[in-house]
Amino acid sequence: MPGLSIPSLVDQACLIVHGPDQPGIVSHVTAVITRNGGNITALDQYSTNDQDGMFFQRIVFYRANLTAAMEDIQADLAETLAPYGMTWSLSDRSQPKRMAILASKEDHCLLDLLWRHRRGELPVTIPMVVSNHSTTAEDVRSFGVPFFHVPSQKGPDKRESEEAILKLLKGNVDFVVLARYMQVLSDDFLQKLGVPVINIHHSFLPAFIGADPYRRAWERGVKIIGATAHYVTADLDEGPIIEQDTVRVTHADSVTELRQRGAEVERSVLSRAVSWHAQDRVIRTGNHTIVF
Amino acid sequence: MPGLSIPSLVDQACLIVHGPDQPGIVSHVTAVITRNGGNITALDQYSTNDQDGMFFQRIVFYRANLTAAMEDIQADLAETLAPYGMTWSLSDRSQPKRMAILASKEDHCLLDLLWRHRRGELPVTIPMVVSNHSTTAEDVRSFGVPFFHVPSQKGPDKRESEEAILKLLKGNVDFVVLARYMQVLSDDFLQKLGVPVINIHHSFLPAFIGADPYRRAWERGVKIIGATAHYVTADLDEGPIIEQDTVRVTHADSVTELRQRGAEVERSVLSRAVSWHAQDRVIRTGNHTIVF
Amino acid sequence: MPGLSIPSLVDQACLIVHGPDQPGIVSHVTAVITRNGGNITALDQYSTNDQDGMFFQRIVFYRANLTAAMEDIQADLAETLAPYGMTWSLSDRSQPKRMAILASKEDHCLLDLLWRHRRGELPVTIPMVVSNHSTTAEDVRSFGVPFFHVPSQKGPDKRESEEAILKLLKGNVDFVVLARYMQVLSDDFLQKLGVPVINIHHSFLPAFIGADPYRRAWERGVKIIGATAHYVTADLDEGPIIEQDTVRVTHADSVTELRQRGAEVERSVLSRAVSWHAQDRVIRTGNHTIVF
Amino acid sequence: MPGLSIPSLVDQACLIVHGPDQPGIVSHVTAVITRNGGNITALDQYSTNDQDGMFFQRIVFYRANLTAAMEDIQADLAETLAPYGMTWSLSDRSQPKRMAILASKEDHCLLDLLWRHRRGELPVTIPMVVSNHSTTAEDVRSFGVPFFHVPSQKGPDKRESEEAILKLLKGNVDFVVLARYMQVLSDDFLQKLGVPVINIHHSFLPAFIGADPYRRAWERGVKIIGATAHYVTADLDEGPIIEQDTVRVTHADSVTELRQRGAEVERSVLSRAVSWHAQDRVIRTGNHTIVF
Repeated sequence: MPGLSIPSLVDQACLIVHGPDQPGIVSHVTAVITRNGGNITALDQYSTNDQDGMFFQRIVFYRANLTAAMEDIQADLAETLAPYGMTWSLSDRSQPKRMAILASKEDHCLLDLLWRHRRGELPVTIPMVVSNHSTTAEDVRSFGVPFFHVPSQKGPDKRESEEAILKLLKGNVDFVVLARYMQVLSDDFLQKLGVPVINIHHSFLPAFIGADPYRRAWERGVKIIGATAHYVTADLDEGPIIEQDTVRVTHADSVTELRQRGAEVERSVLSRAVSWHAQDRVIRTGNHTIVF
Repeated sequence: MPGLSIPSLVDQACLIVHGPDQPGIVSHVTAVITRNGGNITALDQYSTNDQDGMFFQRIVFYRANLTAAMEDIQADLAETLAPYGMTWSLSDRSQPKRMAILASKEDHCLLDLLWRHRRGELPVTIPMVVSNHSTTAEDVRSFGVPFFHVPSQKGPDKRESEEAILKLLKGNVDFVVLARYMQVLSDDFLQKLGVPVINIHHSFLPAFIGADPYRRAWERGVKIIGATAHYVTADLDEGPIIEQDTVRVTHADSVTELRQRGAEVERSVLSRAVSWHAQDRVIRTGNHTIVF
Repeated sequence: MPGLSIPSLVDQACLIVHGPDQPGIVSHVTAVITRNGGNITALDQYSTNDQDGMFFQRIVFYRANLTAAMEDIQADLAETLAPYGMTWSLSDRSQPKRMAILASKEDHCLLDLLWRHRRGELPVTIPMVVSNHSTTAEDVRSFGVPFFHVPSQKGPDKRESEEAILKLLKGNVDFVVLARYMQVLSDDFLQKLGVPVINIHHSFLPAFIGADPYRRAWERGVKIIGATAHYVTADLDEGPIIEQDTVRVTHADSVTELRQRGAEVERSVLSRAVSWHAQDRVIRTGNHTIVF
Repeated sequence: MPGLSIPSLVDQACLIVHGPDQPGIVSHVTAVITRNGGNITALDQYSTNDQDGMFFQRIVFYRANLTAAMEDIQADLAETLAPYGMTWSLSDRSQPKRMAILASKEDHCLLDLLWRHRRGELPVTIPMVVSNHSTTAEDVRSFGVPFFHVPSQKGPDKRESEEAILKLLKGNVDFVVLARYMQVLSDDFLQKLGVPVINIHHSFLPAFIGADPYRRAWERGVKIIGATAHYVTADLDEGPIIEQDTVRVTHADSVTELRQRGAEVERSVLSRAVSWHAQDRVIRTGNHTIVF
């Protein structure tokens, strides 16, 4: 999909800078933008301490003919930030990130993302959906999105399934969303993939880590259930949390009803996390996230 | 405080019935009320299954000159329900339950309960506040409530403190509220006390069971924090949950700010749990609660 | 779709009774159920006053071979309730209500209802979707639901459009849902239709009654927006409210973003209202609703 | 209370800048901070448009020996910002704003502010509470806060009451909070007072503007109620909204219960608005607020 862009975001750039805090960082960074003809329209900054803490910043700026100027701005930033040891990235907001979705049989998160995308609510392209079941193929394709069926294999052949998925994703996507994908991904897969992976867990982590959280919530007799969107790491259910939400339940709700109430929270939490990630609003730091 | 009653609830009774479900229970119970001159104003019923499940019911009814009729109604209920093996209790709603509060240094839950009581929002009397610190004595007494200071003792002398508290409570209260009371009560104490004890835990259980939940929430990087009101059992933080609620937090909130945000949820969750318990809206069953 | 039924609800009945409160109503009604072999699994009752108020009751009961027994139970109820002047209705829960959806261009509420229905979350059948635009035809039909396009006409010809819709609905549906249907229905239409109509209004009524509520919310600078599901009456936006909910917004949200945030609340509020109506949980009284 | 300061905020400054957006503003402003030895710890910026919009910015920075440097920083800012026509203000965060509270009989908002202040949650001093009733005098004074009773007078003598209040407030306070103060303040009073006034309205404005909103909410049969904190202007209930929140209610809630549920939302909404105003997080623009 080369050439595809988001018209309303033409000539808008997003700059993320983070690292050890030092006096003067903000004025140096913003001076770069000014001398390159940019006008800052939104700026969020957060430092963990008054002095010697960690520094996080997201800047959105407008620059006429941004495409032509990108190279110069990048060079200026590189030179200016070199002495500070900061991590930074500059992106053209009119160029949407490419998002692949991995799914299984449950369709609520998958369809919700496809709907929102069609309605123009998610600034991404969706080059593919990959599922270990073929049940949602027709639905997915009705949105004009390619669907690939890669059956899951157990034990030693699991590696084979992962290789097949890797072949599809590698080089074609900027991030991956697990929309209730019911397979655990190996460390090896995550490392080879090399792009962020967002998962939706069907409980308000760290409660009910692991399998079948709605049944366990019912058994414990909780009065609220929830969902958690987080980046996937080698430690299952332990990655940095991006977004969470909860909903009230009562003694009269069966496990099935908890699942239905929960499905609504899941799709809503996941869509917010995806939208924020797509807009470069989420910065990872250790096992935390900064969400601007 | 004999003779003290709630004028607006005069001639109102509350009947709780629960046990193994059997056809005809509802019509037999309601027939008792009708033939004793009562008019049902609210009825909540819940059965766990279509057949052979557990049955839970709360009935509020109006009966002119209730006091005079109580004995007859009790006798009729006893006879009618005898064949069914149900647990039941009948109470005069104009007679408030006697609630003791145990507190420590933190005053937000304590003061909130006292203030709601003064405003007429809690249908209870408060015969005493017992604290292991004397810091809140003046505040408590300014509400016209007796305050007793029983310092906590460690190790073998802990028993002594508990005995002192028991002497104060025994026979004088219908239930006890731990308003951020920072001592673990022994099984022995709970058994001797013999009335329900409600605790407020400063996390959305079962997440962050144990000490210092706000610090651990901050370390995990959660986006919501919460509070849980539950009945106290021998298993710490594992008793039946009465009520829970949550509030959103962000990366910018420090542990101190989590504590402040959390304090608001704690007092609000605890007051709801206390109010429901005082109105006989909560029925315990195993490790769950039915809240009507 | 004759013969279509909900297997999990076979042999379950729902009885709604409401009218002027009188002592003994509950025991008489429940006695009918008992002597006809039913077992009550859920009962909600609410009276507006201790005495001489209005009485509202919903009972769910299980009765083996319900179909065969329906006629007898109806007769018994009719005879028993005759002296009391109550309104009542008895329904077989395994027989889903027939729900038509009227829609326009906006698809979020429409698709959400269709998708929840497919997942088994709404106990209804959907015999048809009628729209004044043809844009959603393909999507609707992909759910196996018939789609009819009836273009809207202005002025004197509006009557003609309404007649065309009436011909489609009349006799074929038990209630109608306006899923962001952007036409005002005439009194004449509502009277001829003769079944309940549920609308979703895109504000927390009574704020922003009328057109373009998101723009007006933005202009007023509110910090929350919401949605309201209500029964449609001759007074636009004034019918009995079934359900409402709100969501937080900020100064940074544009009108477009308010619409997106609001769309999520709309579909969620509408689906709850529809689900409750389908389960006979909503009783209308004057311009209010009782929701059990 | 000269010399009183907040130790944890020593050497922290807050700079607010707003006005017509122009390229380079951010880098010029931040350069001032850098060359005066400050380190920015939090920065929020929002512009209404890519170009030629309105610009809003809040910067918190740390500067060792801030007190000694304030004059130089002010002079540098004045010179730097002179060409841009911006409104700006620089404050020493260790110097709390002086907040007066005006109250009537209802004590929930009043006591909540006093409690929070005593717990260290509100960065203000409270030089006085003024009430048109004497009922809360003892409670207020138990917090060590001066209480003044100024009875309300009707008709032509209303001016007299206002003059008496003005004499107390004038020069002694930085802002005023109406904690359920049940008198309408005249334009003349507001103009003479000359500092911001924050009110808590007991509905989710613009619904139920005017008197007795809970009764009207009950009559309309709404399923949510709410509260709104706003700056007071000459147009009653029409000033810029700072914060709002809502809570669910049901058909079973009486007007009295709506008032009790609402009281909880009121105090919580008001405390957030007060806290944000005290921290210079709220910028007024036309009839809107920017809340950072």
